[in-house]
Amino acid sequence: MKNAGISGEGERRVRVNEDLLRLSGTYLFVELDERIAAFRAAHPNARLIDLGQGDVSRGLPAAIMHELRAAVEDMSHPATFRGYGPAVGYTFLRELIAVHDYCARGIPIDADEIFVSDGAKGDTAQFQELFDRDATVAVIDPAYPVYVESNIMSGRVGELGANGRYDKLEYLVCTPENGFRPMLPDRRVDLIYLCSPNNPTGAVMSRAALAEWVEYARAYHSVILFDAAYEAYVRDAAAPRSIYEVSGAREVAVEFRSFSKTAGFTGMRCGFTVIPREIVCGSKKGTTTVSVNALWRRRQSVKFGGTPYVVQRAAAATYSKEGQEQVRALVDSYLENCRLMRAALEDAGFAVYGGRDAPYVWLKVPPGLDSWGFFDRALEYAHLVVTPGVGFGPGGEGYVRISGFRSREDTQEAADRIRRHLIV
Amino acid sequence: MKNAGISGEGERRVRVNEDLLRLSGTYLFVELDERIAAFRAAHPNARLIDLGQGDVSRGLPAAIMHELRAAVEDMSHPATFRGYGPAVGYTFLRELIAVHDYCARGIPIDADEIFVSDGAKGDTAQFQELFDRDATVAVIDPAYPVYVESNIMSGRVGELGANGRYDKLEYLVCTPENGFRPMLPDRRVDLIYLCSPNNPTGAVMSRAALAEWVEYARAYHSVILFDAAYEAYVRDAAAPRSIYEVSGAREVAVEFRSFSKTAGFTGMRCGFTVIPREIVCGSKKGTTTVSVNALWRRRQSVKFGGTPYVVQRAAAATYSKEGQEQVRALVDSYLENCRLMRAALEDAGFAVYGGRDAPYVWLKVPPGLDSWGFFDRALEYAHLVVTPGVGFGPGGEGYVRISGFRSREDTQEAADRIRRHLIV
Repeated sequence: MKNAGISGEGERRVRVNEDLLRLSGTYLFVELDERIAAFRAAHPNARLIDLGQGDVSRGLPAAIMHELRAAVEDMSHPATFRGYGPAVGYTFLRELIAVHDYCARGIPIDADEIFVSDGAKGDTAQFQELFDRDATVAVIDPAYPVYVESNIMSGRVGELGANGRYDKLEYLVCTPENGFRPMLPDRRVDLIYLCSPNNPTGAVMSRAALAEWVEYARAYHSVILFDAAYEAYVRDAAAPRSIYEVSGAREVAVEFRSFSKTAGFTGMRCGFTVIPREIVCGSKKGTTTVSVNALWRRRQSVKFGGTPYVVQRAAAATYSKEGQEQVRALVDSYLENCRLMRAALEDAGFAVYGGRDAPYVWLKVPPGLDSWGFFDRALEYAHLVVTPGVGFGPGGEGYVRISGFRSREDTQEAADRIRRHLIV
Repeated sequence: MKNAGISGEGERRVRVNEDLLRLSGTYLFVELDERIAAFRAAHPNARLIDLGQGDVSRGLPAAIMHELRAAVEDMSHPATFRGYGPAVGYTFLRELIAVHDYCARGIPIDADEIFVSDGAKGDTAQFQELFDRDATVAVIDPAYPVYVESNIMSGRVGELGANGRYDKLEYLVCTPENGFRPMLPDRRVDLIYLCSPNNPTGAVMSRAALAEWVEYARAYHSVILFDAAYEAYVRDAAAPRSIYEVSGAREVAVEFRSFSKTAGFTGMRCGFTVIPREIVCGSKKGTTTVSVNALWRRRQSVKFGGTPYVVQRAAAATYSKEGQEQVRALVDSYLENCRLMRAALEDAGFAVYGGRDAPYVWLKVPPGLDSWGFFDRALEYAHLVVTPGVGFGPGGEGYVRISGFRSREDTQEAADRIRRHLIV
């Protein structure tokens, strides 16, 4: 080899990003899958019902199927074929979102403030890239694990303590005592992850609670990363479905939305992020501020190839009259499942939360058990899979999450088993 | 507000990731779109032919359409509906890839070494996340801009010099003098971006050239990031289509592939990355090595929601007998376009490269012009859009890229215009 003589460097080796090694070994759902597999191996004839994972179960609504089929046909002819699309999403979809999800509800958001993506997971995981590695982070607890894990991967989070908490991270603990409402911290933080309707607790933040956070963020020049993936489940007319219903939020809040739980897009992959033009962050040159909307646009142009055309057309169909009605009916049917679950759990003597404006019921496990202990009991006694709350952070210990996403038949069967086999 | 008394912190503001500010203001294709828009505004009746962007133009082949339609129907019924899929891709697709693209060609790659994604753009941009921020980087020049831009965003690249080069980055300049073959650097580097068949030069690395790089990477414990998005265009039977055709590559090379240019998936979004189990990187604990395959698996589980089911089914159809034949015919038709372009450009007196085993022709611009100067001339005189080579790095200055992806009619019309209006 020509350059084999480069001296003394043969012993070096490309180094890993050490922050990645600080992720715990297994992701919640991996551990869960392993326990289920072990149970199945030991009980091959048991008919498990999975109330755990947050995946939907019904087919795509007819109006969406109709549009998806039409879009697919476009792909077969040169005249209608669509190749590379805009990294920010097609205008036709961004305009529909702006009109229906925002303007029609009195919220002035325009199409250039919307970024279509392949789902809220990637966006909530990657948005933190825009900010300094030393930014301080507050996160609701319990919460979707991606918020914390993505910040571990970017080096913003310290060591994991014996109490299950990572150092340097501000936990906004949500409990029955505070009505599952994240309270303002007594220090300043840069980035704040909120989620309403909440995964996993099913709690919805009131307008007053959101207003308090917006005021905090405006006072301390923080940015709120607001996950509204479940907004379609809000049935309480007084509860906000977007953080922009609170005045002043345009200057401090980014909102993440998804078609996954609304229209059954978990396997289709489409979501969007709203970044009002007013949001800015600071730079080392203290006098200059930087537009977060422009930063994310540039980031996406380098790292994201756009959402498939056929998927964006299908998403657009959720805004037609038929689409809106069918999506509403789909969401209603999952909410009815939650009602059935709540009723059965209450009959069995459990303390239950959520499940009214969200597809998740949050269940306090009986005294003497922890999350995984109750997971094992539900599996053993009732052949039901639930999600251990501790998988969503230390604040979830002592709870499990039950989803309303199964079929009606499975939900009714699960309700029966709860009443028969899981009495407190 | 409850905590308005946090003292002295009101003046701080969440800070930007300063590395992002070091990206140049506009991405090549944005600048290009702006110049085209300005030309159109001034010449509303001109019929432009776009030989610039690397997007395909033909519809999806019939066998792929057939499978795509069937997969779409699966989404409408609960019994066949697919929600969340594996972040690494469905087994059915990973096994087909392993068998057809590797094992059938004598390369032992198994399905667990394959990670399906929404395209090679995201994977080539994001793979660097796995490595230390201080890793040294070598990049072919000219190259797909995403390699350099993603490393700028991770802080691995220094200041931009007056010569158009970023400090700290090792440029592997490809010129007619070295046969567009990236030469080994005279220092050790950690990460090496190679691309063959090359975008933009159309050059193919020989087995001997690849072997030299594999030997270098083995000697210095580097990792080669090998972009093989255009492998389907290789018609030279002696040229390698995968880096794993070189012995020892499994220990040092990651390979990126795409269905975009093979099967017309630029708007469908599907690619994959191959990570052999043997590849490791080092950690601060000098004695421990870390599996790159395991690292990427963990990374994807946090940050990626998976590729749409319908898209993966469509990609799988490229491996059926009909699919293979139709994809081959599609690629052949684009290669014939390149032949027509080459012939016209040679007739007009240009020095041309590439376009035989790749969908790109690389053209040396006439003396006295630079890349953008020739871009403007082609637009003005022949109403043709070409891609300025300098957009691919300083080594591309003095060249333009012409793609074979347009329709046959447009290609023939473009060839006529070249012969009439662009004679050197």
